[in-house]
Amino acid sequence: MSVLQSYIAGQWLGETPAKALPSAINGDTIAHTHEETIDFAQAVEYGRNTGVKSLLALDFQQRAAILKELAIYIQERKEELYAISHHTGCTRADSGIDIDGGFGTLFTYASTGRKELPSGNVAHEGPVAQLGKNNHFNGTHILVPRRGVCVHINAFNFPIWGMLEKFAPAFLAGMPCIVKPATATSYVTEAAVRVINDSGLLPEGALQLIIGGTGDLLDRLEEQDFVTFTGSADTARKLKSHPNIMARSIPFNAEADSLNSAILAPDVNPEDEEFGIFAKEVVKEMTAKAGQKCTAIRRVLVPAEHLNALAETIKGRLSNIVAGDPKEEGVRMGALSSSDQLRDVNEAIDRLLETSECVFGKHGSFKPVGQGVENGAFIAPHLLINHHPLKDGGAHDLEAFGPVATLMPYNGIEEALTLAAKGKGSLVTTLTTRDPAIAAQMIPVLAAQHGRLQILDAEAAKESTGHGSPLPMLKHGGPGRAGGGEELGGIRAVHHYLQRTAIQGSPTMVAAVTREYVRGAKVIENDVHPFRRHFDDLQIGESLLTHRRTVTEADIVNFGCLSGDHFYMHFDDIAARKTQFGQRIAHGYFVLSAAAGLFVYPGEGPVLANYGLDTLRFITPVAPGDTIRARLTCKRKIDQGRTSPEGHPQGVVMWDVEVTNQDDELVASYDILTLVAKRQ
Amino acid sequence: MSVLQSYIAGQWLGETPAKALPSAINGDTIAHTHEETIDFAQAVEYGRNTGVKSLLALDFQQRAAILKELAIYIQERKEELYAISHHTGCTRADSGIDIDGGFGTLFTYASTGRKELPSGNVAHEGPVAQLGKNNHFNGTHILVPRRGVCVHINAFNFPIWGMLEKFAPAFLAGMPCIVKPATATSYVTEAAVRVINDSGLLPEGALQLIIGGTGDLLDRLEEQDFVTFTGSADTARKLKSHPNIMARSIPFNAEADSLNSAILAPDVNPEDEEFGIFAKEVVKEMTAKAGQKCTAIRRVLVPAEHLNALAETIKGRLSNIVAGDPKEEGVRMGALSSSDQLRDVNEAIDRLLETSECVFGKHGSFKPVGQGVENGAFIAPHLLINHHPLKDGGAHDLEAFGPVATLMPYNGIEEALTLAAKGKGSLVTTLTTRDPAIAAQMIPVLAAQHGRLQILDAEAAKESTGHGSPLPMLKHGGPGRAGGGEELGGIRAVHHYLQRTAIQGSPTMVAAVTREYVRGAKVIENDVHPFRRHFDDLQIGESLLTHRRTVTEADIVNFGCLSGDHFYMHFDDIAARKTQFGQRIAHGYFVLSAAAGLFVYPGEGPVLANYGLDTLRFITPVAPGDTIRARLTCKRKIDQGRTSPEGHPQGVVMWDVEVTNQDDELVASYDILTLVAKRQ
Repeated sequence: MSVLQSYIAGQWLGETPAKALPSAINGDTIAHTHEETIDFAQAVEYGRNTGVKSLLALDFQQRAAILKELAIYIQERKEELYAISHHTGCTRADSGIDIDGGFGTLFTYASTGRKELPSGNVAHEGPVAQLGKNNHFNGTHILVPRRGVCVHINAFNFPIWGMLEKFAPAFLAGMPCIVKPATATSYVTEAAVRVINDSGLLPEGALQLIIGGTGDLLDRLEEQDFVTFTGSADTARKLKSHPNIMARSIPFNAEADSLNSAILAPDVNPEDEEFGIFAKEVVKEMTAKAGQKCTAIRRVLVPAEHLNALAETIKGRLSNIVAGDPKEEGVRMGALSSSDQLRDVNEAIDRLLETSECVFGKHGSFKPVGQGVENGAFIAPHLLINHHPLKDGGAHDLEAFGPVATLMPYNGIEEALTLAAKGKGSLVTTLTTRDPAIAAQMIPVLAAQHGRLQILDAEAAKESTGHGSPLPMLKHGGPGRAGGGEELGGIRAVHHYLQRTAIQGSPTMVAAVTREYVRGAKVIENDVHPFRRHFDDLQIGESLLTHRRTVTEADIVNFGCLSGDHFYMHFDDIAARKTQFGQRIAHGYFVLSAAAGLFVYPGEGPVLANYGLDTLRFITPVAPGDTIRARLTCKRKIDQGRTSPEGHPQGVVMWDVEVTNQDDELVASYDILTLVAKRQ
Repeated sequence: MSVLQSYIAGQWLGETPAKALPSAINGDTIAHTHEETIDFAQAVEYGRNTGVKSLLALDFQQRAAILKELAIYIQERKEELYAISHHTGCTRADSGIDIDGGFGTLFTYASTGRKELPSGNVAHEGPVAQLGKNNHFNGTHILVPRRGVCVHINAFNFPIWGMLEKFAPAFLAGMPCIVKPATATSYVTEAAVRVINDSGLLPEGALQLIIGGTGDLLDRLEEQDFVTFTGSADTARKLKSHPNIMARSIPFNAEADSLNSAILAPDVNPEDEEFGIFAKEVVKEMTAKAGQKCTAIRRVLVPAEHLNALAETIKGRLSNIVAGDPKEEGVRMGALSSSDQLRDVNEAIDRLLETSECVFGKHGSFKPVGQGVENGAFIAPHLLINHHPLKDGGAHDLEAFGPVATLMPYNGIEEALTLAAKGKGSLVTTLTTRDPAIAAQMIPVLAAQHGRLQILDAEAAKESTGHGSPLPMLKHGGPGRAGGGEELGGIRAVHHYLQRTAIQGSPTMVAAVTREYVRGAKVIENDVHPFRRHFDDLQIGESLLTHRRTVTEADIVNFGCLSGDHFYMHFDDIAARKTQFGQRIAHGYFVLSAAAGLFVYPGEGPVLANYGLDTLRFITPVAPGDTIRARLTCKRKIDQGRTSPEGHPQGVVMWDVEVTNQDDELVASYDILTLVAKRQ
């Protein structure tokens, strides 16, 4: 593994060694970047042609299925990656965040895509709005693949997770990715791309890898492309103001290091369980990944009266942390990722000491354990105290990207909120409180300046995933200094990579484009009951207008007796006469049940189960003597590749149901969800 | 109305005339800008302090109610605004787009806010994700006011709509606005702000107005602020790359003029109704507002074989357009907004003629009607043909911002898509086709490059709101050249102005912050049945665990008889035994009905109606012999200021329902919606 290679236009590229990349543990050279230059015009063209074509030959559901297979494949080969990851200074736990976190994100997006995206490559973001009185003109929104390439520029600290957390949603969205990892740890990303490549699972052009610089890549991009960046706020600013990105309004998502805080609320006392939980969380965030996380806690806000107690508790915990080569028994903190980082962090600590005192670290006798570690990038954890945190500067403005945090005393909630805001936009804050009222007061104010907020109490601590862990289902990225971007957050991340477009037209045209039945669109009426049609045969718009049923007073009585529901609107003539309806009316659930009685085909057939119902609204009440009927129309079909427990393939069908009365007034409106067998 | 005034920090400012603003109709001076400089630091501070405070003293629902009152107030005084709007060169129809479109947008956002936003100032964007196995740690998202100011920089063409379409969602989101209209037509905006001010409806600091330049305003902004811009692509680029906006990641939404197209699909022939509809739409878009709409049709793509027929049809319609002072009878097209615009448009036409021929306009004898119009900014409509549109340049790159469009012949659908894409990102395209299959083929490809797409056929034409009209419920803004921004789109626009933040914590903490019951949170169990509590008294989390009911075979039979639903899963032992359940099971709707029978309080009380049900899922089937019970918990309360038809105040209450069986397995899960009376 002497020369790393780029993977461009389906070819591995690079043989001549350029820059040497040293191990963070002992300084040995791990690999070299390559000397050969990359033809970025070719890379972009390949992505836009071959990549887009092969990705869009699949649909959302098929790409989700590939993500799952890929996650399993990487999981099976993860030990290879752990072995390489060790050189970046990681403990096994640190590597786990990167590697297990990486394929874990693929699993989550496989599942999110399967559950929340349709078949096909057009996602319909309803509801459909009727734009004219007579329903000839509708409007709605669709989300479609942008037909461009994604350039992902990643940070050195998570060479695998950083790639996969962006790749997964972009891939689902049908965008080919060109990944540029930070050079210092690019050997880990390269190893992961080789594993991915070996899997043979990805369609051609879905993933390209750049080892080294980006050259003229950003100049090659066009309107339909997309750039994401994770790293320092300074670099983010430089890249996003690139003239070509500005001129073409190319979407640019930045996620930058920020000066995250943790707040011990005024209601927590040193004798409370939460006091220790808070101190533990601070120490965990200081030392995990040797503090090299953009989400790490840099500023610790503590009620002034508890400053000393908290400092002592944290110092006690820090003094138990053994640093060194993670292969040595008992080591709990690894190295910074390079000697450059070590220099930067030491410089930053010196600058922080202009406004703060050091209470742990600086003058201690720090000795990492292990062989050759004197050439590694090790540093002691540092705890500082800033006694005048209301002044600007210090840890409000300067980040030491290592195991460094600054305690800041405060007086009263308003002051705590003021101090937190001095980060000028952060990725995450943890608030530790026992009192829901304090959470309800502080969180909405903090939220204006944060991408994520953790409320940590004894209950949450039982299962907390931690202050520093972005989760695939939750938004990652904060305002202001944190870059103003938004990643992850479940299906939201897929939507970021899609283009949202409003469409307008007749219901029939809107239905054709969205592949979803829209009321007012032409329906298909066959002699065959739609419940007798297999998933494969059923068409969007197939519809059944049922026979009628007259609802009588006996129905109300029988339904009340059977259900036990004797609500006054149905049974108390005196009360019912005083209401807007002026009389007893039938139970809404009776109408729902009777409608099923009208449209259900009773015989054995491909419709296997009605497993849910959405957006039911009772619109016009049904009184004794009213006559109802139902229209059942196939609204949407999703092929998630499901099978029954017996292995029979099936799909999801959503049906639109309209129940009307004798005056054609809408009585009830809803969607039902069914599983329907395939012909096989 | 000689000197226009800015409205800053609650004061009208400006007495000394500066620049003269001429009438577009006859060149007479309508008003002057003011000489006095604005203290932008003061304006921003006032917005951030007084404005934010007064806006957040209200909640989402109260702000929505104010928007409605404001819409009514402006509507009542609209004739004053029409009188002033005339000077900008508008016909009455043109003014209507600006004025009625403006307060119409307020009406829509009043209604959208009322329906889709909660009480309070925290919007919960679920669903809540369970992050640990035992439900001690949850995650979800909230949307909160950013606690900063909005700067809206608007274009000259819609001085009222342009202000209000941005103000409405920002106001709902709790952001004070500083509006900077384009100077040329700022006298119309000033008049509208005076009307708004006279209403006394807005809280202090909600709206400030800048007449003239923005000085150092953008340097004064911070991370929590927000900038929107509508205008030329060049200015958009300049503003969004402002160093302070870049450095602080201040959100910047741009909506720029784009080279929109209209496509006549290959299936439409000159004898089809759609052919004439298409020609009419093109002419309407060329002449409305004298073509000064960022959404106007600039490029008309037509099958080569129909080029001449279409050109003739359009020329015929154009020759009937009378231009001049809209006060004159029969005038259907007004003036450009200023002599500067007239010069720019003429220059652009000359440049377009380097690649195109002029078939209408240039050499005709154009004479606007009316007195003094020789000093106005009138121009003839111009129809050009570019015979080689596959080459870049011409109307693909250059916009004449007036009544000018270029016909472009194409051969085959792929070529039409290629030509449309040469706009490099547009606000809107109209596709005229009779064939849903062509729409389904072309629209998803076009969508990648557009903000909005209209499909126009004979049916849609009956109620079409038109190619050029952004609607409050649909997204406005396109990718690439169109600026990459996103405005309107119903509730989406409000969300743009809010900060989205992920929150994590125990269910009890998450419930406290979202003001919404979350499963696993502490519940409140009183002796009083929750259905007996008035809206005012009911607390989030009030809960009832019901008595139990054993479901029997007789229930299934009775329910089948009453509903008429004899589906094989409930009634056919032979078929049911073959399914995954292995036996007949109870109807899902029976479970739903029986659950209501368990939790409904039958007596007259404050719960007035169950009007809907959401997200019902049947999870574990219920077989004869199973025993079910329900838990009903108050999940969410929304006070929309509703009253019953009899005038009794009421609120909306959403209840969480969990139906479980004897093994505490979840059988069914759903939310029900009720109206609950207030105590009064």
